[in-house]
Amino acid sequence: MKYRFALRADTLKGSEIREILKLTELPEIISFAGGLPAPELFPVETITQLTNKILTEEGQLALQYGSTDGLPLLRQIIANERMALAGVTTTADNILITSGSQQGIDFCARIFLNDGDYVICEDPSYLGALGVFNTYHAKYLPIPMDDDGMIIEELEKTLQAYPQAKVIYTIPDFQNPTGRTMSIERRKQLAKLAAKYQVVVMEDNPYGELIFEGKRNPAIKSFDQDGWVIYMGSFSKTFCPGYRIGWTCADQELINKFILLKQTTDLQSSTIAQREIAYYMRDNSLDEHIQEIIKVYKARRDLMLDSIAQYFPAAIKYTYPLGGLFTWVELKSEIDTAALLLEALKENVAFVPGAAFFPNGGHRNFLRLNYSNMADERIVEGIKRLGKVIQRYYE
Amino acid sequence: MKYRFALRADTLKGSEIREILKLTELPEIISFAGGLPAPELFPVETITQLTNKILTEEGQLALQYGSTDGLPLLRQIIANERMALAGVTTTADNILITSGSQQGIDFCARIFLNDGDYVICEDPSYLGALGVFNTYHAKYLPIPMDDDGMIIEELEKTLQAYPQAKVIYTIPDFQNPTGRTMSIERRKQLAKLAAKYQVVVMEDNPYGELIFEGKRNPAIKSFDQDGWVIYMGSFSKTFCPGYRIGWTCADQELINKFILLKQTTDLQSSTIAQREIAYYMRDNSLDEHIQEIIKVYKARRDLMLDSIAQYFPAAIKYTYPLGGLFTWVELKSEIDTAALLLEALKENVAFVPGAAFFPNGGHRNFLRLNYSNMADERIVEGIKRLGKVIQRYYE
Repeated sequence: MKYRFALRADTLKGSEIREILKLTELPEIISFAGGLPAPELFPVETITQLTNKILTEEGQLALQYGSTDGLPLLRQIIANERMALAGVTTTADNILITSGSQQGIDFCARIFLNDGDYVICEDPSYLGALGVFNTYHAKYLPIPMDDDGMIIEELEKTLQAYPQAKVIYTIPDFQNPTGRTMSIERRKQLAKLAAKYQVVVMEDNPYGELIFEGKRNPAIKSFDQDGWVIYMGSFSKTFCPGYRIGWTCADQELINKFILLKQTTDLQSSTIAQREIAYYMRDNSLDEHIQEIIKVYKARRDLMLDSIAQYFPAAIKYTYPLGGLFTWVELKSEIDTAALLLEALKENVAFVPGAAFFPNGGHRNFLRLNYSNMADERIVEGIKRLGKVIQRYYE
Repeated sequence: MKYRFALRADTLKGSEIREILKLTELPEIISFAGGLPAPELFPVETITQLTNKILTEEGQLALQYGSTDGLPLLRQIIANERMALAGVTTTADNILITSGSQQGIDFCARIFLNDGDYVICEDPSYLGALGVFNTYHAKYLPIPMDDDGMIIEELEKTLQAYPQAKVIYTIPDFQNPTGRTMSIERRKQLAKLAAKYQVVVMEDNPYGELIFEGKRNPAIKSFDQDGWVIYMGSFSKTFCPGYRIGWTCADQELINKFILLKQTTDLQSSTIAQREIAYYMRDNSLDEHIQEIIKVYKARRDLMLDSIAQYFPAAIKYTYPLGGLFTWVELKSEIDTAALLLEALKENVAFVPGAAFFPNGGHRNFLRLNYSNMADERIVEGIKRLGKVIQRYYE
């Protein structure tokens, strides 16, 4: 290697599993490996009209540079509506528009993590966040989960044992990869522990509004009294991901640092995309649109879980997601789901093997299934095929 | 301060000059402080038709997630047309779509700079790049310039004295802030020195296509035989900045690292924005559009330089930009342009004081003027007002 890279560049390596997952995109494969929203639900017609109006009435403004922190109207609607729905009282001044919530994760890591710092997270956790933390050579303190999310007693033990840990990363609603939801009681406890141990909580919440029954859960941020919680939201799952618009909500001292970081990394997010989303929310009901998404995803979840019950061995376990895009399947411990994927591909069906989601490794018998982006008959057929492959290990 | 930030976060501080520059946005001020393209030249009508077509014919695709490296068609047109214009023979596989060329700068820094590494750059250099390098606590080795750009003999002395330096950052065409252009001979020499000393060249080139007379200069990258030059381009100045679309062109080993970094930082740039620009270039002549921009900017440059000749003291010096957006004025050494700005604001005219562009400081008597985004009569009136303020120091 001739280039003298920074130390962190050693983490930027392709992975074997990523190469295999490319195969899952072949058209003949029924793939539960993705995490895409259903494009047939994008409000394309309304967006077309809106875009025409924006370009006709203020095209020059919409295509020019804008401010680094984001379009004031968009920040205001996010503060007053989306954050309020999550039980958080805040103002536009506490919102930074980011290029997806992914960018918020990167900014948090960049602002808080020195090389080799500890990150506390759920075990398993979101692959894309682990990828970010890896570039800072983070060390992981994964906290076991149950059906109510991260086990708080375990978290406190870890905080006591590792007072140098700076960051707790969590996806409280319909977690990726497990589909699990943190209980409200645990959210309160988590907010308290963060203040007690002076640790920042990265609350990654791209799915929270896609709740299949009942009302949006209060965010951990809603129980935050002293500014320890940083909330990251996104329009990728509730509107459409192609615009790359998300946000970070944090206390003043923090958000100011985030804005300065945004300035250096990419100046700002798309001016016109911010207008599209802001005006959409001003002139239409995003809540009604989200209800349509929920109706479809809930039906797909039901169909997937029913199919699993029918076609998978009775001995397996799987989560019952109350919202979001994923369910998580546990097979018997001797099964390696990476090897299983190769067998599944022969039957033209795919999933994501679970091992990579565990930051410190050690669990090879899990798999993640996505149900948001697939027609009913393919869900049934795909689960049937996958069941056939799994059954071989249970005979 | 209650938060335990990463060490690098200490560089994310507001600056006094940034606060003052906010004043320059007041409507009564004629401000030469910006660096915006002229919005009246954005092809708004064509974009409107194009967007309608995209949303009608492939709305679901255009609003969905896309691939991290970018839209294949866009990467191909960039390789075959924009890079070819700069004399670079390359393929789509060597192009990553970024959120403006700014993101390419950040990626380079992130991939190459350990804390405290040396960065070689022009003296003065682009503020936004210095902001990025600062977050890595870079140490600077600024190279003096003359009207032909970075002085290559000085560069080689520096490379000999500091073999540990990893990166040379340069804006060869119509540099920000000076408006100067690196001679073709020096580009060749720079490419050779990079290979000889195994240093990476970050060739930041957002303005190169806006050349007022003659043909596009060959990029430094066009003289690169062994992959030491990383080229960063942008559509912000030749199309419109609101979409936040730029690109990085580098050899395979490097671009693969960039793509993996893009994946962790924000997954991808806007799917629909990439389509807009790709289809615009496929269906229209971007070159013809750029000719229109050039016509306007050239006239504005002429008017600004004529006005400077008329209203500024004869003793001052200023650059004659052959393209781009800026000219650079040197006043006598006892004048501090930060103080001058406060006086200028009283006369409702503004500019950027030059001190911040010098990475190691030490030059307070320069100022940067932008001419791209202002009507003729305001250019004349603004330069007249500024001349009045400057004259006070020369009586």
